[in-house]
Amino acid sequence: MTDTRIPIILDCDPGHDDAVAMFLAWGSPAIDLLAVTTVGGNQTLGKVTRNAQSVATVGGITAPVAAGSVRPLVRPVVVADSVHGVTGLDGPALPPPSQPLDKRHAVDLIIETVNSRPGQVTLVATGPLTNLALAVRTAPEIVKNVKEVVVMGGAIGVGNWSAAAEFNIVVDPEAAAIVFGAGWKVTMVGLDVTHSALATPEIVERIGALGTGPAKFLCEVLAFFADTYKRTQGFDAPPVHDPVAVAYVIDRAVLEVLQAPIDVETQGRLTTGMTVVDRRMPAPADCKTFAATGIDVTRFWDLVVDALQRIGEPS
Amino acid sequence: MTDTRIPIILDCDPGHDDAVAMFLAWGSPAIDLLAVTTVGGNQTLGKVTRNAQSVATVGGITAPVAAGSVRPLVRPVVVADSVHGVTGLDGPALPPPSQPLDKRHAVDLIIETVNSRPGQVTLVATGPLTNLALAVRTAPEIVKNVKEVVVMGGAIGVGNWSAAAEFNIVVDPEAAAIVFGAGWKVTMVGLDVTHSALATPEIVERIGALGTGPAKFLCEVLAFFADTYKRTQGFDAPPVHDPVAVAYVIDRAVLEVLQAPIDVETQGRLTTGMTVVDRRMPAPADCKTFAATGIDVTRFWDLVVDALQRIGEPS
Amino acid sequence: MTDTRIPIILDCDPGHDDAVAMFLAWGSPAIDLLAVTTVGGNQTLGKVTRNAQSVATVGGITAPVAAGSVRPLVRPVVVADSVHGVTGLDGPALPPPSQPLDKRHAVDLIIETVNSRPGQVTLVATGPLTNLALAVRTAPEIVKNVKEVVVMGGAIGVGNWSAAAEFNIVVDPEAAAIVFGAGWKVTMVGLDVTHSALATPEIVERIGALGTGPAKFLCEVLAFFADTYKRTQGFDAPPVHDPVAVAYVIDRAVLEVLQAPIDVETQGRLTTGMTVVDRRMPAPADCKTFAATGIDVTRFWDLVVDALQRIGEPS
Amino acid sequence: MTDTRIPIILDCDPGHDDAVAMFLAWGSPAIDLLAVTTVGGNQTLGKVTRNAQSVATVGGITAPVAAGSVRPLVRPVVVADSVHGVTGLDGPALPPPSQPLDKRHAVDLIIETVNSRPGQVTLVATGPLTNLALAVRTAPEIVKNVKEVVVMGGAIGVGNWSAAAEFNIVVDPEAAAIVFGAGWKVTMVGLDVTHSALATPEIVERIGALGTGPAKFLCEVLAFFADTYKRTQGFDAPPVHDPVAVAYVIDRAVLEVLQAPIDVETQGRLTTGMTVVDRRMPAPADCKTFAATGIDVTRFWDLVVDALQRIGEPS
Repeated sequence: MTDTRIPIILDCDPGHDDAVAMFLAWGSPAIDLLAVTTVGGNQTLGKVTRNAQSVATVGGITAPVAAGSVRPLVRPVVVADSVHGVTGLDGPALPPPSQPLDKRHAVDLIIETVNSRPGQVTLVATGPLTNLALAVRTAPEIVKNVKEVVVMGGAIGVGNWSAAAEFNIVVDPEAAAIVFGAGWKVTMVGLDVTHSALATPEIVERIGALGTGPAKFLCEVLAFFADTYKRTQGFDAPPVHDPVAVAYVIDRAVLEVLQAPIDVETQGRLTTGMTVVDRRMPAPADCKTFAATGIDVTRFWDLVVDALQRIGEPS
Repeated sequence: MTDTRIPIILDCDPGHDDAVAMFLAWGSPAIDLLAVTTVGGNQTLGKVTRNAQSVATVGGITAPVAAGSVRPLVRPVVVADSVHGVTGLDGPALPPPSQPLDKRHAVDLIIETVNSRPGQVTLVATGPLTNLALAVRTAPEIVKNVKEVVVMGGAIGVGNWSAAAEFNIVVDPEAAAIVFGAGWKVTMVGLDVTHSALATPEIVERIGALGTGPAKFLCEVLAFFADTYKRTQGFDAPPVHDPVAVAYVIDRAVLEVLQAPIDVETQGRLTTGMTVVDRRMPAPADCKTFAATGIDVTRFWDLVVDALQRIGEPS
Repeated sequence: MTDTRIPIILDCDPGHDDAVAMFLAWGSPAIDLLAVTTVGGNQTLGKVTRNAQSVATVGGITAPVAAGSVRPLVRPVVVADSVHGVTGLDGPALPPPSQPLDKRHAVDLIIETVNSRPGQVTLVATGPLTNLALAVRTAPEIVKNVKEVVVMGGAIGVGNWSAAAEFNIVVDPEAAAIVFGAGWKVTMVGLDVTHSALATPEIVERIGALGTGPAKFLCEVLAFFADTYKRTQGFDAPPVHDPVAVAYVIDRAVLEVLQAPIDVETQGRLTTGMTVVDRRMPAPADCKTFAATGIDVTRFWDLVVDALQRIGEPS
Repeated sequence: MTDTRIPIILDCDPGHDDAVAMFLAWGSPAIDLLAVTTVGGNQTLGKVTRNAQSVATVGGITAPVAAGSVRPLVRPVVVADSVHGVTGLDGPALPPPSQPLDKRHAVDLIIETVNSRPGQVTLVATGPLTNLALAVRTAPEIVKNVKEVVVMGGAIGVGNWSAAAEFNIVVDPEAAAIVFGAGWKVTMVGLDVTHSALATPEIVERIGALGTGPAKFLCEVLAFFADTYKRTQGFDAPPVHDPVAVAYVIDRAVLEVLQAPIDVETQGRLTTGMTVVDRRMPAPADCKTFAATGIDVTRFWDLVVDALQRIGEPS
């Protein structure tokens, strides 16, 4: 019997919504989670790596976890502690990791994994794109060996870290420019859709009703997230960005996407880190960049709840 | 009997849609057109000034016409000959000017006029913002003496001269940054609304049916404009940008506007000339910049047709 | 008998060394000081204008003083209070102005004066170049009507306000780019030479020995300047930048100059405001920009002392 | 008996002067050449790698040669074919490589080598700094494990690829900013000294007199280099940049160096790629960047000739 699951590497910086993304990737029957790699972003590398290990412990995730870049390619470290707190995953109690860290550097793990399965691996990135950029520049052959890249990051319209830029991109705009310009297929899952993926009270209740440890953990994650999003950005319910990128790998019907040239501003006074999506004309047929423009929110949350159900109560 | 008309100076670079703006400003009973000032933009200063004089002759416009800046503040001259042709107003036959040019420089005319009627004069700009920027920097007191500034230019969303920038702004982004940051009330009438102000065949027919010289002239203007917009940007009917700014002065109901901080990117690799409208949060109450987000197209064209009717057949 | 003196306008921001420049321009038999115009720079416009009037009073200077730009073209106001103090001319007691301000704006005065004497007037600028830039952009014909422009500002080598930029240029780099690129003859008198124009104790003694009011005033000016330069930049004796530009107008032998293309960086992360002098190859014969590379310090100070002697004791 | 030689990795893009650098590093009794790594620069990666192998063959160099980055971190590929010709080493006949390429990527080789000998290895870079930047960002621990970094590149004064920038830096300014800012000791050997390291006819004659194969090869290399430098930059004799960096590793007396903060401009309109050396004040005692300011040319060439003599006639 062949394995029809889609093999992915989840490159992330947990982070509250990253935790949901990890659960979704692990619980979904459509995905084969090959590895979780980490990158400095929502918090420093040490913290997000530890968080990734703890989230793996909570969810019974046995995929390897490997640490990556401590800092952006060119610019200084910026963290989102106003959103994710001092640990990067404030709110729930975090268990000690049950599994050691993979010895490999995230960049090496990505390169080896992609090259060992040409044409198969999907890279899903939910943090700054430093690891992917270093992998592309060190081993350009991964561009043709990857199946596709799905990025949570950017925005066609309103930004969150500045008027025009989203956090994951603005933190390392040079890395993002490398990833969007590499020549592989990249789908940008930006704020234009993730700001609709809200963890409303109804959603939280649905998750809580599952009654399992991971579900309870997520409810605590989302409670903290709700609080900071209300306080810092005026949201009534928090947008849960990162799992939307994973959901799109599972089910294309979750998102509407637009084929269009995408590049990243690296020099602006006001717009550094903006994902510039050229919508003036229909894209050339060979354009390999896509931007999400619409989301089926119900379908998205159904996937998340289904994944949690399948995870159940890890031993 | 007091004159309740709104005194304006129209700073423009005719330009096909500028010609419509001149007719609208002159024909509208709500507006007192104090002067037409010109600026290098759609074509070089000499050409657009000559065009302004010819359009005035066609429409019987007796307001003074004064020439302004030959070039942007800092950057080299760029013209839109792909849109407006080699004369800047290709298409109709242009009569020789019936009226001499005003002796004053546009910048001096603007400063003197505004300062002579404190709190009264509205500046409507439909070209690059070089003249207004020079006026502000040479005579900063005009900021408090102007009633308001209405600018055709910029975009919240899709640009036309680049993915994110509109022609009038990108040609002189430093001037635009000065004007949007000057501290006076500025309303940006950008592509987000003007791309809906289409001169459809029905509209052209309505104008043609007026049967007057100016109406016939406009039909020729719009025929040429239709052709270049179809050819260069794929539009079925041409957007007629500039008069929308004038229409908003006549009737606030023509546009929906959003109060929001607006600044202009001057340093970007991809985004120079972008009007960055910060829509993340409600604007502070004292925010003096506004961006048009919706248009009542019927109301707009009714104003244009009405103005043409009132202009009738100039002797 | 014809007047063989060189007519100049001194555009400045007094400022300690500007005061010396005013005395040199007024006292020199080779110069006809047509006007002193002011620009916000070392301190705010109000302060430097008042200082210019007071310095004129001390020196018996009856040339008109006209106020100009309150701020740079595009960027926010920056002042050099660390060097020139809270008044812009800390140190000596400043007498109240004995002469009213000219009614004209500096930019208008410059334009009118230059255009009324085509080919004759030299513009000497010792502050930010905002006034000259506005004059060029508003009245481009002054480029051909000016005799030449001499600018104290910039550096080929070491900067003072940043590693690569000098204060007058970095405060308004867009204005400087306009002035250096205008097409008239411009000579840059930068830190490469002015950092050798030191007011050593011997020089101060020579000036003091003149015994006049203006000489005593200058000694107080230089005493304050010595103190701040020692404290902020480690100089044993203070460089007296601005009068070097005036001295070059009086006597070409004061400076060695290099013909070379000069442009101003306006977009750098580290180098904004740097005067980029292209010394890779001999300049094209029609190159109209020159940079000072050597100074005859003795000849310079002799000119200053001679001017002070001629000023004597104003009534 | 302990080996007192200094272990180095030479990261280069041969390149005429890179060839001299390889010979100097191999022939000098003071240096243990651990590896030659290549980087796209003077020509594309394939060409410079092949050239490195051929030069190794000519000189009997048996150190491993490993290929690195095909392109700059963020910017498009630029090559110096106007200086080095279509092969990157035009002029001499190039023998086929006698030794296979090392299997490792240059970045991995650098990381492994440095980390296996903590505190010992000197990195000498004579091409764009892409490999070193990728190594630092992937394996930040090499910063403390390296002994020092010596870079041929940059300029305090006059540039060569633009008025202010040198080729190796301007080709990948982001990489250069990473390397100069990494926190290890870096010495910049820039045009300020290498433009004095001229291969005069006397020098070429001295080399030719050695009569060996490598010496004859170098004479052909230098003959071509002389021609292009005369033609493109007006030099009477060609500057031989790259071996100066190697010479400094061998003998500190070859260069005078200045301790000063160095950063690289990445955003300038005119100055991108400029090495900004802050010479305003004495550097802080813990400043780890140094710039060469003077060269003992005789001592430099003596080292080169000595190395060639020691290489003799490889079998």
